[in-house]
Amino acid sequence: MAAFPDRIVRINMKELTSRFEETPAEWLGLGGRALTSQVVFSEVDPLCHPLGPKNKLVFAPGLLTATPAVNSGRLSAGAKSPLTGTIKETNSGGTAAQALARLGIKALIIEDQPAQGWYGIIINKDGVEIIDEKDLIGAGNFKVVEEVMDRYGKQCSVVTIGPAGEMKMLAANISVKDPDGKLRSHGRGGLGAVMGSKGIKFIAIDPEGADDIHIADQDAFTRASKVFAKGVAEHDITKALAEYGTDVLINIIHNAGGLPTRNFTQGQFQGHDGIAGETMNKLIKERGGKVRHNCQKGCIIMCSQVFNDQHGRYKTSGFEYESIWAMGADCCVDNLDILAEADHWLDDLGLDTVETGVAFGVAMEAGVLDFGDGRQMVRIIKEEIAKGTPLGRIIGNGAATVGRAYGITRVPVVKNQAIPAYDPRAIKGIGITYATSTMGADHTAGYTIAANILGSGGNVDPLAKEGQIELSRNLQIATAAIDSTGLCLFTAFAILDDERLLPAIVEMINARFGTDLTVDDVMELGKRVLKTEREFNQRAGFTSEDDRLPEFFSTEPLPPHGAVWDFSGEEIDTFWDF
Amino acid sequence: MAAFPDRIVRINMKELTSRFEETPAEWLGLGGRALTSQVVFSEVDPLCHPLGPKNKLVFAPGLLTATPAVNSGRLSAGAKSPLTGTIKETNSGGTAAQALARLGIKALIIEDQPAQGWYGIIINKDGVEIIDEKDLIGAGNFKVVEEVMDRYGKQCSVVTIGPAGEMKMLAANISVKDPDGKLRSHGRGGLGAVMGSKGIKFIAIDPEGADDIHIADQDAFTRASKVFAKGVAEHDITKALAEYGTDVLINIIHNAGGLPTRNFTQGQFQGHDGIAGETMNKLIKERGGKVRHNCQKGCIIMCSQVFNDQHGRYKTSGFEYESIWAMGADCCVDNLDILAEADHWLDDLGLDTVETGVAFGVAMEAGVLDFGDGRQMVRIIKEEIAKGTPLGRIIGNGAATVGRAYGITRVPVVKNQAIPAYDPRAIKGIGITYATSTMGADHTAGYTIAANILGSGGNVDPLAKEGQIELSRNLQIATAAIDSTGLCLFTAFAILDDERLLPAIVEMINARFGTDLTVDDVMELGKRVLKTEREFNQRAGFTSEDDRLPEFFSTEPLPPHGAVWDFSGEEIDTFWDF
Repeated sequence: MAAFPDRIVRINMKELTSRFEETPAEWLGLGGRALTSQVVFSEVDPLCHPLGPKNKLVFAPGLLTATPAVNSGRLSAGAKSPLTGTIKETNSGGTAAQALARLGIKALIIEDQPAQGWYGIIINKDGVEIIDEKDLIGAGNFKVVEEVMDRYGKQCSVVTIGPAGEMKMLAANISVKDPDGKLRSHGRGGLGAVMGSKGIKFIAIDPEGADDIHIADQDAFTRASKVFAKGVAEHDITKALAEYGTDVLINIIHNAGGLPTRNFTQGQFQGHDGIAGETMNKLIKERGGKVRHNCQKGCIIMCSQVFNDQHGRYKTSGFEYESIWAMGADCCVDNLDILAEADHWLDDLGLDTVETGVAFGVAMEAGVLDFGDGRQMVRIIKEEIAKGTPLGRIIGNGAATVGRAYGITRVPVVKNQAIPAYDPRAIKGIGITYATSTMGADHTAGYTIAANILGSGGNVDPLAKEGQIELSRNLQIATAAIDSTGLCLFTAFAILDDERLLPAIVEMINARFGTDLTVDDVMELGKRVLKTEREFNQRAGFTSEDDRLPEFFSTEPLPPHGAVWDFSGEEIDTFWDF
Repeated sequence: MAAFPDRIVRINMKELTSRFEETPAEWLGLGGRALTSQVVFSEVDPLCHPLGPKNKLVFAPGLLTATPAVNSGRLSAGAKSPLTGTIKETNSGGTAAQALARLGIKALIIEDQPAQGWYGIIINKDGVEIIDEKDLIGAGNFKVVEEVMDRYGKQCSVVTIGPAGEMKMLAANISVKDPDGKLRSHGRGGLGAVMGSKGIKFIAIDPEGADDIHIADQDAFTRASKVFAKGVAEHDITKALAEYGTDVLINIIHNAGGLPTRNFTQGQFQGHDGIAGETMNKLIKERGGKVRHNCQKGCIIMCSQVFNDQHGRYKTSGFEYESIWAMGADCCVDNLDILAEADHWLDDLGLDTVETGVAFGVAMEAGVLDFGDGRQMVRIIKEEIAKGTPLGRIIGNGAATVGRAYGITRVPVVKNQAIPAYDPRAIKGIGITYATSTMGADHTAGYTIAANILGSGGNVDPLAKEGQIELSRNLQIATAAIDSTGLCLFTAFAILDDERLLPAIVEMINARFGTDLTVDDVMELGKRVLKTEREFNQRAGFTSEDDRLPEFFSTEPLPPHGAVWDFSGEEIDTFWDF
């Protein structure tokens, strides 16, 4: 199974067939995002309907996935996004990437769609089986994971969509089983709707019996991986993430005046203490949860956690800053228990918490419910979105849909995708990322918060214009490269500050494949990924005019700094000068 | 008042002020669509939010409006469309254009928006008054027209929005009082939402005391206008429109196999007889309605009618083919009385019947209601759309919104606007118009049905590719010119077939203004209008890739001809070679 080179698996959902293919020579050096974006670019008509037969859904582990490299188990999913209309790559932790890599699968390409019906896909060392699925249709993600493990064994990984993906909601995500049978998500861009459009409820991946993956130079790999692991483990931000999770950012971004509050009308949230990482840490300890929790085998950062309810019962994990911000500060809800309840249900439904939280913020501005009314938010999730009522459809299709439905002009989206938890007026570097990302507003595409706020990889004044474009450009290039390795993006803080780590990554790739890439080669790969993605978008009809923030960021000063978004179109467009 | 040249009125809805301005020299030769599109191009930021303060709503009578030229009373409304994101001009019959022209108003430019509140605008020979409005908020268009006439006199014209425009629904239209106090509509592109976003419930235009408009050479005008009137009156299509209304087309387009049925899955409708113009004609005569009815003073075509219910009570007028098709054939509803009921309520709510009918067709495909269930359609209009419930918001925001909400891929829209009553697979010329129109799918932009089906202006095989691009191009250019004169587009059939009429129009314009334009000059004006509109769209981020029909037209053959849409992108783009 695991002989090098790995193979491509193509599944045709109209014919209900699958086949293994040798990896084309030009794809051999690609993995993760580089590979999914290349496949989408090469094989998907940029003008196709994202939910129609011509779109393809591509999964690819990273170049280092299933090696002993720490935090290397990210799975990339790619397609034309039904939310943005652009190319989309979204990566997730969990167990699937390592299972696919161990089975010698470099990419899984899912094509076409059935006339009707729902299917499950089982992948193991013997091949691929496509089965009719009835029992699990309508089921939430937690039940799917349990049932698939019951049927095929606890060692199975599961990639699944919830009712939101079945209903083809534009905020639907794809969920992946973590090592504890909980969920991680390919969150953004609505790829859950693409999986739903192909009639696939779940993919079970059983790595049992697969050999360990082939590493060309084991000693060299071990040497480099130790350098890398040590560097990651010792970084201060890594340690903070372990202790407080990503939610450590609530107070940091609040203090910076860049925490979008009340549908992006304020930069600070009065109720920030109630939802901060410090509060979460205290509650977890009081209630017997886990402060540290890994989403994948080999994770040494452990930013996840187990958050229990008041009675000490499990409620959620992977309870992230951006989710807490979206349903919390942006909606003026200051109670972590309500947010955990909402997070749990959105995970079960398979809906992006960021998109949905921002959608609620716009709905609150429209008067559909009151700012701060977290109970009503949970009710709408459970009784409207879950059941696909008209209101559920409006909110489940994201912030831009809510804005259109209710004629609201303060709608924080770029290319139809909700802007996440960092206000671009007060933290300008991230605004460049939102505007220029090939995938709509996305903080992970080029996380300038590192240098704008956290002092990682330099210091760039968040309120000034100077240096922001270069900062975003460098980070977007590096991110595209890292997203191709399978490494967790949270290794990037250490990589930015410790000059030994990037060479160590390149040494690991070389040791894995017997290649002799340089650091420059890997950065060139990052550039190539961005340019490939952009060319897809241009063929789909996107132009520089789409690389703009909504009007209100330029006309409404954000308290407390009174900052506005003040980059001209011409300035933004210089991002692409590389 | 009526001294030449006419003036521009600017109204600022933030300051609640108005001022009269001399017409800039470069706008003197423009009217109707040429003027509204030029103002929008010159003064509106192409990237602005269409419902925000930077958009402008422009009204302009045509160059010949309020002259004795027959059928010259069209009013153009222009803005950036909230439905399509493109520039938009939509023109309407009724009484407003003539009232504005008699008051010496060449264009009304409405800018900015109030922080809150609703207003009425009264325009008369003494100037402009902006008043707070409370009583009529939430009222339907029929009540607005009645109340405005009660307050300001029956001679007043009224431009109004219904609840749909107040709710800023993307299918909201702007209605205009006709000579009987009934309604005509600026139907497409959602400009009612723009009027709503500016806090304007109605504009009352009182022409009392205005002089007749100035005509530079009265004798020349009279000579030319007689030639024009005679030519229009004697044309066969003019006569058919008078007898059966535009609904005469149901059987014609059904017989051609191009009547989109059951959400564009069939080209013929089994129930066509029930909704045909011949049936309408019979019912009108049985029930004491009027077969012929004019929407404006000076109309000699009289395509409108008065359609009474079973008890002989007034139900609707301006009961058009495209409305009857959309809610009829496309939704498989074969009962004219139900369609008249729906038409009446949509007129009262101020919602585009075409967009809404197509939205219902998509909703039927999604299973929201059953194909053929006209009663449920009327219920949804009265109880959901009128009240702004979530389902009402989804449908009232048009076909594309319904498609997104329910994950439907067979959504017949171009640039987000619903494709009207002629299937582009079976009548290919109109497909070129839908694809290339600067305003999204719109049959009136270049009505190739004339030569494809009706034998007016030549004969071009509707099922073949040959000649369609040239046909659409010539018609779109001519239409842009005609839309600038204030002439009703239904004069075009006669103009296409009688070579004396276009020169007569040019002579009327010259006699009105003392100019010496040629026929070529007027055609050049049409070209300039199209290119100006296209440049606005390009600055707003539109590209050739937006000039495409939805995927399903190319992949799903349409019965009975089995025709598919088979123009390549490159072929379509040659449209702009002029």
